[in-house]
Amino acid sequence: MSSWYQSALTVDCPGRGTYDVTQRVQELVAQAGIRTGLCHVFIHHTSASLVLCENADPAVRSDLEAFMGRAVPDGDPMFRHVAEGPDDMPAHVRAVLTQSGLFVPVAQGALALGTWQGLYLWEHRLSPHRRRLTVTVQGAPG
Amino acid sequence: MSSWYQSALTVDCPGRGTYDVTQRVQELVAQAGIRTGLCHVFIHHTSASLVLCENADPAVRSDLEAFMGRAVPDGDPMFRHVAEGPDDMPAHVRAVLTQSGLFVPVAQGALALGTWQGLYLWEHRLSPHRRRLTVTVQGAPG
Amino acid sequence: MSSWYQSALTVDCPGRGTYDVTQRVQELVAQAGIRTGLCHVFIHHTSASLVLCENADPAVRSDLEAFMGRAVPDGDPMFRHVAEGPDDMPAHVRAVLTQSGLFVPVAQGALALGTWQGLYLWEHRLSPHRRRLTVTVQGAPG
Repeated sequence: MSSWYQSALTVDCPGRGTYDVTQRVQELVAQAGIRTGLCHVFIHHTSASLVLCENADPAVRSDLEAFMGRAVPDGDPMFRHVAEGPDDMPAHVRAVLTQSGLFVPVAQGALALGTWQGLYLWEHRLSPHRRRLTVTVQGAPG
Repeated sequence: MSSWYQSALTVDCPGRGTYDVTQRVQELVAQAGIRTGLCHVFIHHTSASLVLCENADPAVRSDLEAFMGRAVPDGDPMFRHVAEGPDDMPAHVRAVLTQSGLFVPVAQGALALGTWQGLYLWEHRLSPHRRRLTVTVQGAPG
Repeated sequence: MSSWYQSALTVDCPGRGTYDVTQRVQELVAQAGIRTGLCHVFIHHTSASLVLCENADPAVRSDLEAFMGRAVPDGDPMFRHVAEGPDDMPAHVRAVLTQSGLFVPVAQGALALGTWQGLYLWEHRLSPHRRRLTVTVQGAPG
C-alpha cells in the first residue's frame, strides 16, 4: 500500500540568507497521514536552493554564507549573464552547487531528521523574492 | 494506489557541455501514465552529471562552465588520477559537486518545473561519450 | 502495487575519508524484496555526507579529498563556528557541497549502479564518529 500527498508552500524571502522551513514542512507531513515513507521538497527556481544544515548555532549559516560569498563572488567579471544584476549569475552557480530538491525519510509520521539537522531555503538573490516549493509525501499510511 | 514506470535513456555527448534533456524526460513521463508523483532521473556515470538550470539565456550555462573551469581546472598538478587525461579527475570532482540523480515533481501528468527551469545532462569530459540514464516515474495513475 | 522497506545502518568512521557502503546497502535492497523501484540512502548528520564516486582507482577518492582540503581548508580564519575545532565548520561546508541523501534505481531486485559507481559515506571530521543512515527502498515487489 502506498499513498501520495502533494502540497504547495510559499516562502517570502526579504533577501539573501537561509530560512528555516523545517516546521512548515513538518506540518504538511502531519497532514499527509503517512507513517513510513519519504518527504520530497522541491524549489521551482534556479537562483534559490535547499540545504540540510546544522540547526543549533546560527554562526554555521553565516559562515556558510561567507564561504559562498568568497567562492562565488557577486560581480565576478568572468560572468556574461549580468543583465539582472551582479548577484544573478552567482545565485545560479550557488543553486547548482547546492540542491533543488531534498528528501527526508518519514518515520512514525514525522520527518526523521538528525538532532542537528534543519531544512533551509537558501535565497541567493539580494532583493526580496517570493519562492514556490512543492512538498510531496509518499509512503504507507499510518 | 501507486504505479511504477522505469525506462532507459541514452544521450550522445560530442564533448564537454550541457545538454537539455527536459523534453525527452517529459515524453517518458507522458508515457508513464502517472498523474501525481515524482520523476527521478539517474546518470550511471561518475564523470558526467545532472543539473536543473536556468533555461532562457544560454550565457547562464556558458558562465557555469566558465565557473567550473576555474574552480576545478583541467590538468591540476595536485591530481594523481591522470591516466585517462587532464580532464578526467576534474570531471569526477565536477560530478561530485553537482548531481548524479535529480527528482522533479509530476503534477497533472507532466514535469512540474518552474518557468525558468530546464533539466540538463552536464558532460564533463572533453571527448565524445554516450551516457546512460534511467528515468523512474512513480505515483498515482491518472 | 508499491511496497516500502526502511532500515537503519550504522557506520563507524575512524576519521576523515570515504567509506564504501555499496555492499551493505545492496544487502538491505535484497532483503527488501522489491524488484523495480528506488533506494534512498540518508545520513542523519551535517558534518558527513554521501557521494557516488568512481570505485576502481583509490587515487580518485584521495584526489577528491585533496580537492576539498584546498577548496574548504581546515582552520580557515573566516569561520566563526570554531568551538568544536578547526575541522568542524569545513565539515559542514563539505556536507552542503555534496549530498545528505542519494537515490539509486532498483532494477531486478538490485542497485542499478553503473560499472564504475560506488556509494560512499564521506566522513569530514578528523576524529572518529559513528554515523547513522536510513535506507528506504520503495517499489513494486518481485
